[in-house]
Amino acid sequence: MPALLAVDAGGTSTRAVLLDATGRCLGYGTAGAGNPVSRGIEGALASLEQAVQAALTTAGSPAAGYASAVVAMAGASVHSTPGPLAEHLGRLGLTGGLLIEADLLAMFFSGTYQPDGYALIAGTGAVAARIEEGHLAAVADGTGWLLGDEGSGFWIGHQVVRAVVAALDGRGPETALTPGLLAALALVSAAVGRAQGRPETVQRLIDELYALRPVELSRFAPLAFAASDDGVARLILDRAAAALAGTLAAVSDGTVPGPVVFGGSILTHGTRVTAAVEASLPPLLRGGGAPLLVGDGVVGAAVLVLRHAGIAVDADIFGRIRGTLQDLRAS
Amino acid sequence: MPALLAVDAGGTSTRAVLLDATGRCLGYGTAGAGNPVSRGIEGALASLEQAVQAALTTAGSPAAGYASAVVAMAGASVHSTPGPLAEHLGRLGLTGGLLIEADLLAMFFSGTYQPDGYALIAGTGAVAARIEEGHLAAVADGTGWLLGDEGSGFWIGHQVVRAVVAALDGRGPETALTPGLLAALALVSAAVGRAQGRPETVQRLIDELYALRPVELSRFAPLAFAASDDGVARLILDRAAAALAGTLAAVSDGTVPGPVVFGGSILTHGTRVTAAVEASLPPLLRGGGAPLLVGDGVVGAAVLVLRHAGIAVDADIFGRIRGTLQDLRAS
Repeated sequence: MPALLAVDAGGTSTRAVLLDATGRCLGYGTAGAGNPVSRGIEGALASLEQAVQAALTTAGSPAAGYASAVVAMAGASVHSTPGPLAEHLGRLGLTGGLLIEADLLAMFFSGTYQPDGYALIAGTGAVAARIEEGHLAAVADGTGWLLGDEGSGFWIGHQVVRAVVAALDGRGPETALTPGLLAALALVSAAVGRAQGRPETVQRLIDELYALRPVELSRFAPLAFAASDDGVARLILDRAAAALAGTLAAVSDGTVPGPVVFGGSILTHGTRVTAAVEASLPPLLRGGGAPLLVGDGVVGAAVLVLRHAGIAVDADIFGRIRGTLQDLRAS
Repeated sequence: MPALLAVDAGGTSTRAVLLDATGRCLGYGTAGAGNPVSRGIEGALASLEQAVQAALTTAGSPAAGYASAVVAMAGASVHSTPGPLAEHLGRLGLTGGLLIEADLLAMFFSGTYQPDGYALIAGTGAVAARIEEGHLAAVADGTGWLLGDEGSGFWIGHQVVRAVVAALDGRGPETALTPGLLAALALVSAAVGRAQGRPETVQRLIDELYALRPVELSRFAPLAFAASDDGVARLILDRAAAALAGTLAAVSDGTVPGPVVFGGSILTHGTRVTAAVEASLPPLLRGGGAPLLVGDGVVGAAVLVLRHAGIAVDADIFGRIRGTLQDLRAS
């Protein structure tokens, strides 16, 4: 049986893996952002090509091609027509079908080969899903920085800057987040000048923050983790954990017992947020064992391409995907 | 003594009044948005010209000119050089000096001629100030939709849409705000299709809301007032009131007893928010009598131009400004 291609095309980076029908990974490659929404279709195709070429090269058989492909992408992109992608992959050796899958599903299958369970992802955004028979049965949040993404990196960073601005103009309690944020923006907190009834430092801080795109506020989330002895920071993290637990609870239907897969930097770094979400899992889900932490969706994309080829992925095959991919990544 | 010109150049509309040294208003005119930040300098100058020309025309002496002018504008514009404005007003008959003042100060003086007190404004944004000897002594919030403006029209509208999105995907309680928001966007709530684990109505709602500029979410604030029997809506309004009370408390220094001026649509329509903020005024401020409600800053701009001309504005003059302006507005 010819090789298969699995791609995890994310908003920050793209990962491609070539594997055989037993789950043995033959080649692996990476590139920059591969999401058409955040990168534009041209940029996404360029990243896809770079990652796939690298995977073909490390596989040592660039001319052999592959029989079918799965590309995992963020929700909104799934609705887009796969036409340009399929055409592009055809020129890169794809001889069979292409399927675009939700990145959320790929993240889930990076943690488990079981067809039923839950995924909770909190990176820049935040989203949860219940998976049944290998499909998304229910999704909660993932509604973006303006409407939701509660407990995400953006959400935490946003709360950090709002808390500092409130503290500086006397509406909120003083917080250790203030020197951290001012330092991150290279602003001097000692400036004592006032203009229009406001300290000049506050006006400069406001100007700096509005110069960013809103989602960039996620870069201030680490300040909350670094200052977790501070009451304001702790409250932000506790509210983030409660929101994430609520998002996961919203997709739980009381019959699917797990497993639960955690992904995204807010949940996979072993912080108080991870512990708090884990502690508040519904009893049914807690029974399924500790949450499985995953770094990205490339293993899951490989599981999905095997499933679509009619191969039942079991513990053996799943272990082989993970082991051989780890070897390729380490080399 | 020759006439004086006062202009209130707002983000939605511009008001100009020509008055004499006794506070008698001679002419009045209006135009569209006059704020260089929201409208651009060319558009702002066009609105200014239209309003001033109309004021000169109703005064019946378009050729006479005026000795000095005050233009009240939003905080950020105060820092901008008054050069183009002065040049423009020179061609429109200004023979003396031009002063640009903060709109917040003009709102305060629309409510009182006292040189000390407080202003709390909640329209699209939210800001409070303590005024001492006719100047802004302290300002809190007014930090914009991304960083603050807590309790403002934007803030309430934002909470409304977040609450509806959360209710629709099961993260938040059901709320009467949902049918209101779906109707406002002409979306049908009965759609039962699902895509990628999510009801199609939710995805369409998300698409519609991201198509707006963030500040436009303020247009959904009235939904909260209309649904004030609903627990979710009531909680949003109560939190808005608490935030506004906190913003006002942040500028109170415990010595200036008032008066307190309320401005902006969230506070001047006599809703539960106004009542709740009033009920939570610090004792010192409550002693100064009920808050004075003002609709805009044009009376205050007139007070400011008189003050800058060295005229002590007392109850008589203040009453004359208000009375004669009301006559001009009614005619």
